[in-house]
Amino acid sequence: MFTQPQKIAFSLPTWISDYTNHVSVIQEIEDRVKFVIEASRRNIDEETGGPFAAAIFERDTGKLISLGVNLVQKEGLSILHAELIAIALAQKKLGTYDLGSPKMAPHEIVTSTAPCAMCFGAIPWSGVRRVIAAARDEDARNIGFDEGPKLKDWRGALESRGIEVICDLQRERALSVLSEYVRLGGLIYNARQT
Amino acid sequence: MFTQPQKIAFSLPTWISDYTNHVSVIQEIEDRVKFVIEASRRNIDEETGGPFAAAIFERDTGKLISLGVNLVQKEGLSILHAELIAIALAQKKLGTYDLGSPKMAPHEIVTSTAPCAMCFGAIPWSGVRRVIAAARDEDARNIGFDEGPKLKDWRGALESRGIEVICDLQRERALSVLSEYVRLGGLIYNARQT
Repeated sequence: MFTQPQKIAFSLPTWISDYTNHVSVIQEIEDRVKFVIEASRRNIDEETGGPFAAAIFERDTGKLISLGVNLVQKEGLSILHAELIAIALAQKKLGTYDLGSPKMAPHEIVTSTAPCAMCFGAIPWSGVRRVIAAARDEDARNIGFDEGPKLKDWRGALESRGIEVICDLQRERALSVLSEYVRLGGLIYNARQT
Repeated sequence: MFTQPQKIAFSLPTWISDYTNHVSVIQEIEDRVKFVIEASRRNIDEETGGPFAAAIFERDTGKLISLGVNLVQKEGLSILHAELIAIALAQKKLGTYDLGSPKMAPHEIVTSTAPCAMCFGAIPWSGVRRVIAAARDEDARNIGFDEGPKLKDWRGALESRGIEVICDLQRERALSVLSEYVRLGGLIYNARQT
């Protein structure tokens, strides 16, 4: 007889409550990016996942809506990249699968490294109106991570859908987390290439 | 004080247990595709989601591992496309984020419509070694669904990673489900285009 799980569930690491506890609004964009990068650092320090974090904010006010981190290894699910988790948390919290609903304030996703092919593809469905990324694709690739088969002009593809893209904010800081992960001997899991 | 959900959980519609109950192995590839397309039909008949389904099989034996359906509206999460659900269910069931682990039999994903940009990007991370798709991108677009900003040569991009791609199997049957969804007045949710 065939059986499969009837349910998928995953939980955030417990340190995230502490980390976000006193945060409500982050006005400056650079500070939003720092907040996300330091979450990616914490995720490796706490050994709860890969060196990646992402958050959803109200774009214009800087109100924090959700914070996700990479949980691929911890939960054993390849789809659990930081961006997908941040999107799901925000949608659950706000009770809608569309963060761009005309009834709501516009939202943005801030990510510690430019989105991989999957997360890039998830962005238009999420309803966010802006993407802010710290480290580049090539920075992730340089430490051995695979960003997947992504459109060369992924920024243009989002912009043409009215989604603003800002890159390279706090890139050096994000790079220092990627390097730290390598130094600590963190697992670089990859899809096989051939 | 900031709060967000500490957990994300979603459940399969109850009809899936009945639908899969007597299935263990489906030897012929065409029959695997029919099984998935009929699940997509059931998903609209039962009003549990959009007209899309996907399953993971052992490629060489046809052993069914998981079956997912589109649950975007039901669960209020934009990431819950059939392919991502099928991948997550299979990984949870087998206890690994890599369905392509050398210790395991090779796996494939069979999907009722060619993957959107997000699901395409998720495929290399999943570890599946083959993709089989019934309806084409353009078939989904023709009824108003948006496949997202996808590489023009998405098949080539997967093939170059050693992932075989077979398209157009039982395409007419899959198309009949997409048309039925439109006839029933099913919601075509979309990311806004501008």
